[in-house]
Amino acid sequence: MSDLILYVGNKNYSSWSFRPWIALEAAGVPFTDKVIPFDFAAGNPQFRDLSPTGKVPVLHHGAVRVWESLAIIEYVAELFPERGLWPRDAAARAEARAISMEMLSGFRAIRNACPMNIRRKPGKIDLPDGVRDDVARIETIWKDAIARSGGPFLFGAFSAADAMYAPVVSRFEAYCLTQDETVLAYMARVKAHPAWQKWQAAAEAEPWIVPEDEV
Amino acid sequence: MSDLILYVGNKNYSSWSFRPWIALEAAGVPFTDKVIPFDFAAGNPQFRDLSPTGKVPVLHHGAVRVWESLAIIEYVAELFPERGLWPRDAAARAEARAISMEMLSGFRAIRNACPMNIRRKPGKIDLPDGVRDDVARIETIWKDAIARSGGPFLFGAFSAADAMYAPVVSRFEAYCLTQDETVLAYMARVKAHPAWQKWQAAAEAEPWIVPEDEV
Ligand SMILES: N[C@@H](CCC(=O)N[C@@H](CS)C(=O)NCC(=O)O)C(=O)O
Ligand SMILES: N[C@@H](CCC(=O)N[C@@H](CS)C(=O)NCC(=O)O)C(=O)O
Repeated sequence: MSDLILYVGNKNYSSWSFRPWIALEAAGVPFTDKVIPFDFAAGNPQFRDLSPTGKVPVLHHGAVRVWESLAIIEYVAELFPERGLWPRDAAARAEARAISMEMLSGFRAIRNACPMNIRRKPGKIDLPDGVRDDVARIETIWKDAIARSGGPFLFGAFSAADAMYAPVVSRFEAYCLTQDETVLAYMARVKAHPAWQKWQAAAEAEPWIVPEDEV
Repeated sequence: MSDLILYVGNKNYSSWSFRPWIALEAAGVPFTDKVIPFDFAAGNPQFRDLSPTGKVPVLHHGAVRVWESLAIIEYVAELFPERGLWPRDAAARAEARAISMEMLSGFRAIRNACPMNIRRKPGKIDLPDGVRDDVARIETIWKDAIARSGGPFLFGAFSAADAMYAPVVSRFEAYCLTQDETVLAYMARVKAHPAWQKWQAAAEAEPWIVPEDEV
């Protein structure tokens, strides 16, 4: 029983929803989720009632509304400091936030060309300009962090930084974007996490097909 | 004397540099800044040595490197908790982070069409699609926050949220993007802040002209 309600989009497609969801779930934070499916043809007017940006994810906590995936994570990290959503070491936490914000502000090429689609059967597509650069930077980020922390996740235990990159793990797999062994091994560990498995099962059970995101 | 060194781009043009700079300066955090001017023709190779993304701003603190404007602010807010970089109330802090992350992740139309140019003589330009929507959302964000806090800044005292929107204040003025009186009064208060005045004086004294940002 919890008074945190996280509104998310379709689990198969909503990459921004996945991020705070897996951060909270992996940390064992008590919360309830509610799926509000996209309706691309008409827009989903319900989003407007739930969130000032008309977008998901949005967290409701009593009268408090928190939008933006990473702001939700920060809010919950403060509510449950003992859950370790961020790394405990200050320098590691700074790096975790920096790479989380790189995700939030950048990587447009891969985000546009390779929509998250959990159910997608892995297979290559033609990659427009910029995707290779995004992939290379993300591989560097992951490998540097794992080299420093020793793994298994970016900063040791699963943290908000792994959560912010979880949809990228799905994209790397679905569009066969990497052959790097360290990167593939990290992806396998993320996909084996119980929180990932739970989201994936829910995504696979969803009835909705969004043609725009089937590339 | 401080061991925090903030590397910034040209003060006239570097909107992402302005954000952490004014957050730290307004909060009275001791730091040193170093200007690394853009060199658009060739790229500035020095950026690569300073920051893993090859972008400014980047903060050096001993061996620690923090990149991404908002990650720099979070790091310094933790180092100097008594300086109030974020609002003290948890709900206000959540909203301050949410709108800061909206800035980081969005508002592409206004960012692309209306580059920050502190020295620009105010005057209208033709606005491409999307700029009006960005302006409307930003006006709503500012007015809602001020209505709740009572001002003078978004959450009462000047905070990281005002810092994240400082370049937008400059753009609203330089391209005559608003006629709203509440918004104009807020902008006047931001521009009267000593930290703003100090950045502006430095921008006006810079010799470099970047043609791409002169629209
Ligand atoms: N920067 C936002 C992005 C949120 C976002 O774009 N959400 C998408 C779903 S993944 C959405 O709600 N789209 C519906 C719409 O734009 O109407 C965040 O990090 O939460
Ligand atoms: N999301 C980054 C954006 C940083 C950024 O784009 N900085 C620009 C200057 S305002 C830059 O360094 N450009 C140089 C380049 O891309 O080569 C942040 O918030 O710090």
